Amino acid sequence: MQKLDLMYEGKAKKVYATNDDTIVWLEYKNSATAFNGEKKASIEGKGRLNNLITSFLFSELQKAGVENHFVQQLSETEQLVKKVTIIPLEVVVRNVTAGSMAKRLGIEEGLPLKKPIVEFYYKDDELGDPLITEDHIALLELATPEEVAELKVLAGKVNLFLSDFFEQKDIRLIDFKLEFGKTLDGNIVLADEISPDTCRLWDKHTNEKLDKDVFRRDLGNLTKAYEQILHRIGGNAHV
Amino acid sequence: MQKLDLMYEGKAKKVYATNDDTIVWLEYKNSATAFNGEKKASIEGKGRLNNLITSFLFSELQKAGVENHFVQQLSETEQLVKKVTIIPLEVVVRNVTAGSMAKRLGIEEGLPLKKPIVEFYYKDDELGDPLITEDHIALLELATPEEVAELKVLAGKVNLFLSDFFEQKDIRLIDFKLEFGKTLDGNIVLADEISPDTCRLWDKHTNEKLDKDVFRRDLGNLTKAYEQILHRIGGNAHV
Repeated sequence: MQKLDLMYEGKAKKVYATNDDTIVWLEYKNSATAFNGEKKASIEGKGRLNNLITSFLFSELQKAGVENHFVQQLSETEQLVKKVTIIPLEVVVRNVTAGSMAKRLGIEEGLPLKKPIVEFYYKDDELGDPLITEDHIALLELATPEEVAELKVLAGKVNLFLSDFFEQKDIRLIDFKLEFGKTLDGNIVLADEISPDTCRLWDKHTNEKLDKDVFRRDLGNLTKAYEQILHRIGGNAHV
Repeated sequence: MQKLDLMYEGKAKKVYATNDDTIVWLEYKNSATAFNGEKKASIEGKGRLNNLITSFLFSELQKAGVENHFVQQLSETEQLVKKVTIIPLEVVVRNVTAGSMAKRLGIEEGLPLKKPIVEFYYKDDELGDPLITEDHIALLELATPEEVAELKVLAGKVNLFLSDFFEQKDIRLIDFKLEFGKTLDGNIVLADEISPDTCRLWDKHTNEKLDKDVFRRDLGNLTKAYEQILHRIGGNAHV
């Protein structure tokens, strides 16, 4: 596989074309951003940690039957994935109140939900990734109602697998953000990443935050927290 | 009927107890507020216009079979309504893109929707009345899923009636906000007001704004616009 031109550079990753039309080459960056890019930093080692954690989790999800874009880990900061057209929705699944939902509703963080809540945010930096309803998704033609239903089913499956998986590592999966893409043959598959950048992960016993809130809220050393996650899930064994 | 103690003062109305436990006395105020109270003014005649318009529309809705809290108009600024416990949701119905939805989604105003969109906002001034999803409504226990379904049906009925009614007066009903309450016997009925404060109303031919956007966006004389609405719907004939 050959790495060709840079196709796209996002906040956390660079996407390169390859000599295979159906595959792209991802490079994880060290940049950390929060609050729609208002807070920024470069954190040594972050790209590596997210690449290793995502590669491991996507590979585990595939074994569990959750189709996704992951093809192969290439190096500590690089992976190959199927080329997909990203659906411009952030699909957020919540098991415990936290973050923007707690703020929006004026409620405490840390309250377990009777059943998981799925929210959709419109991926648009200029608009600040606003919360939107299923009617808005239809209006903007971001996805059909059938696709929205499918996204909810897929998000639920990912949640079941990950909640159980993290639980076994003494980690509480509080909430997380997923992105989905359409493959060239029109299938919807899980894409993007699953890492402490996109999940809230709390230690089961102490509720210590082991995720991007360490950066957002200046709670300490980000890479130490992410290394803790990598270590607990055993993802570094695969490098 | 006797007017007793002031029970509650909102931005647009005062609510008084009466000697009948099931009835309250509303007094419409002249204050105009927008952007969650950041923009304020007192506009002579506004209370009168909203009281007359609301009394007329609620009475027409009752004739059309849409149960609501309206009992009787008392004076130019006062009316009697059934005592209800307001459900803390703003139920917004949209026929054409405008206002906060257009802003949220980054789309033009004035695009007719293929079918009406219903949105729910959490009535909470401190939180800025945020858009919320049906899952959030369930989480906060603001209404049961069955009640939410009922609210949507009722909002749809109001929309059908009002769209047709305004159309006949050469007015386009762009969008509007409803509030609902529970009567002492537990029924959900339409409450609050329906006026140019709570609807976007555009002239059918010129798209001239005849509603609170005149105040929000400094487009001219608010009372003239509201008088135009009252005049066209024929509401002053009832005083």
